[in-house]
Amino acid sequence: MEHILEVATSIQSLDAAAMEQARTRQQQLTKPPGSLGRLEDIAVQMAGITGNPLPIIKRKAVVVMAADHGVTAEAVSAYPSAVTPQMVLNFLSGGAAINALAQHAGAEVVVVDVGVASELNHAGLISRKIAFGTANMAIGPAMTREQALAAISVGMDVVESLLKQGVDLVATGDMGIGNTTASSAITASIAGVPVALVTGYGTGINEEQLSHKIAIIERALAQNKPDSTDPIDVLAKVGGLEIAGLVGVIIEAAAHRVPVVVDGFISGAAALVATRIAPTIRDYLFAGHISVERGHHLILERLKLTPLLDLELRLGEGTGAVLATTIIDAALSMHREMATFAEAGVSNREEK
Amino acid sequence: MEHILEVATSIQSLDAAAMEQARTRQQQLTKPPGSLGRLEDIAVQMAGITGNPLPIIKRKAVVVMAADHGVTAEAVSAYPSAVTPQMVLNFLSGGAAINALAQHAGAEVVVVDVGVASELNHAGLISRKIAFGTANMAIGPAMTREQALAAISVGMDVVESLLKQGVDLVATGDMGIGNTTASSAITASIAGVPVALVTGYGTGINEEQLSHKIAIIERALAQNKPDSTDPIDVLAKVGGLEIAGLVGVIIEAAAHRVPVVVDGFISGAAALVATRIAPTIRDYLFAGHISVERGHHLILERLKLTPLLDLELRLGEGTGAVLATTIIDAALSMHREMATFAEAGVSNREEK
Repeated sequence: MEHILEVATSIQSLDAAAMEQARTRQQQLTKPPGSLGRLEDIAVQMAGITGNPLPIIKRKAVVVMAADHGVTAEAVSAYPSAVTPQMVLNFLSGGAAINALAQHAGAEVVVVDVGVASELNHAGLISRKIAFGTANMAIGPAMTREQALAAISVGMDVVESLLKQGVDLVATGDMGIGNTTASSAITASIAGVPVALVTGYGTGINEEQLSHKIAIIERALAQNKPDSTDPIDVLAKVGGLEIAGLVGVIIEAAAHRVPVVVDGFISGAAALVATRIAPTIRDYLFAGHISVERGHHLILERLKLTPLLDLELRLGEGTGAVLATTIIDAALSMHREMATFAEAGVSNREEK
Repeated sequence: MEHILEVATSIQSLDAAAMEQARTRQQQLTKPPGSLGRLEDIAVQMAGITGNPLPIIKRKAVVVMAADHGVTAEAVSAYPSAVTPQMVLNFLSGGAAINALAQHAGAEVVVVDVGVASELNHAGLISRKIAFGTANMAIGPAMTREQALAAISVGMDVVESLLKQGVDLVATGDMGIGNTTASSAITASIAGVPVALVTGYGTGINEEQLSHKIAIIERALAQNKPDSTDPIDVLAKVGGLEIAGLVGVIIEAAAHRVPVVVDGFISGAAALVATRIAPTIRDYLFAGHISVERGHHLILERLKLTPLLDLELRLGEGTGAVLATTIIDAALSMHREMATFAEAGVSNREEK
C-alpha cells in the first residue's frame, strides 16, 4: 500500500508551459483558429501530459487484464466463465477483436492473467495470477484488501516494464465474464447512485436476467457494506482482479507522464477508482469511447471526460480505446506537420 | 445533362446477398453479437456497396474541389477570397490540415481547380476551371445551368479517372472562401427551412456579421427564386462550382459501387443535391463527421445518416471525411481478420 500511495501522490499536474506553446502553435497553423476542434485540444493536452510542445507517440500498447468473477455463480452473465480463458487464448493467438483493432492502430496487445479461474500457460501471456477468480460477492467480499492491492501492483509492474521498453501510450482493456456486474457495483458505490441506474445488459442478457443482476448487485452491496469513501475498500469488496490491475496500469502510467486511453465501462470503473486514489490522474486520461453499457455515461460525467468515439461498442477488451488511439495519432500528426500561415504564405484573417 | 442523368439513374441498390453473408459472418465472430455496434454495420454496408461479403479498401483518395464565390463581395466571410488560391497551393505543397490527416489515413489528396478566381498553375493540380468564381448570388444567379452541369461533369470525370487508377474509396473535400454561404442557401432552399436555421459562423464571423450573412442569403433566395424541386436549379442559382463538382464526385462513385465518405457542411450540401437527383445514392454514403457548422445537423437528419465522428471540426477540406475513413478501415480489418467461435474454440452463448 505504501508504494502504491507513494506513486499515486507523486503524480504531477500537466505542464502548463508546454500546453501554452502548443496552443500558440495551433493559432499559427493554416486554418481558422479552433476549426479542428477536439483535435486541437488533444494536441494541447498531450503537450501537457508529456511536457513536450510537439508531442509524438512512438510505441503504443493495450494492456488487457483478465480475471474471473465468483459472482458468475449467480447467473449474472449470458456466457459461462469458461469463456474467459478461451478468450485469453484467442487474444494470444491473434483471433479476437482486440487483435484486429490493435493491428489496425499499430499497438501491441499485452495480455495479463491477474486472476483467471483456470491454469493458463502460454509463452505470450504475462502470468501474475493473484487468485483463481474472485469470491462470490453476493455472499462475502470478492477479494481481501491484500488481494486488491496485489492486483494493483501487478498493473503497476506491467506498465513499468512496458515503459522501460519504450511504450509511450497505454490503452486499457479487460476480459472477465461477470465483470460488468463488478463494475456496476463499484460505480453505484463510489458514485452513490442506485444500482439500477448503472447496470446494463453486459454481453447480452434479457430483461428478466437484468432484474436478477440488479438484485444480486444490491445484495452484494448490502452484504459487504463497502466504504464508498475508501476506493480500495470498494474495489476489494465488490470489484474484480482485472479491474484492480487496471487501476495499477492507470496510476503507473500517469506517474510517468504517459497518456492513458481508457476503454469502456469496466476500464471506466477502474478509472473512477484510480481518480479517487489520486484526482490528478484525471488529466492523464482520454476516454476512448462511450459504451452502450448503462453506467458508462455516468462514469464519464463524474470524470468530466468527453469520449473520443461513439460507435455503440460494448465489447470491452480495449477495443474502443485502441481505436481511439488513432484519433490521438491524427491530432499529433496535424499538430506537428501542418504549415504555419507564415511558412505557407497564406493570408491570416487579420490581414483582411 | 443526359449523361449525368444516365449515370445517376444507373445507380443500383445495395447487394442484399453480400450483406446477408457479411451479417452471418458477424454472428460467427468471437464476440457477443452486436457488441461491435457501428463497426459491424459499416462492414455490412460496405459489403452491400461493393458486392463483396469480405470487402477490402486498397486505395483511398480525398477529392478537394476548389472554387471561389462572387458573394464574398458582400463581406460574408472572415477571410478574403485570396485565401482560396493560397490554400490550394498549400494543399499542393503538403502544408494543410488535409495533407497531414490524409497522410495519417493513407489517402492521396487530389486537388481540383473547378473555379478559383485567379490563374493557378501547378503540376499537381487538376485544372478544370469552369469560371473565375461564381457570380454574386445576392444580385443574380451564381451560375448558369450549363456551368453547374459542367462542374458536375468535372467531378464525374475526376472520379472516373481515379477509379481507373484503382481508387476504391472516395472522400469529399472542399476549399472556397464563401462556401458556407452557398451551402446554407442550398440547404434552406432544398430542405424548405428558414435561412437562419441553417446558417452559421463559417470560418469565424461574429454575431453581427452572422445577421448580415443571413440577410444576404435571404436576398439571394428572393432574387433568384430557385425551384426547390429542381436540385440543379438550386445548385446553379445559389450554389458553388466546387459544390457542383462534389455532386459529380458522389454520383460517379456511387454509379461504380464505390463508397463515398462525405465531409461536413459543404460536402453535405453536395450530398443533399446528389440524393435529390438520385435517391439511391444515399446508401453509398458515409457521413464522416458532424460539423459544428449550423445546418449540418439538419442535412444529416434529412439524409438519415449518422456521423462516424464528432470531434467538433469545422474546417472542411475533407479533414473529417478522411479521418473517418480510418474507422471504416478498422471495421473491415475486424470483419476480415477476427476468428470465428469454431476456429478459436470459444464457447458461444448457446452452449452455456
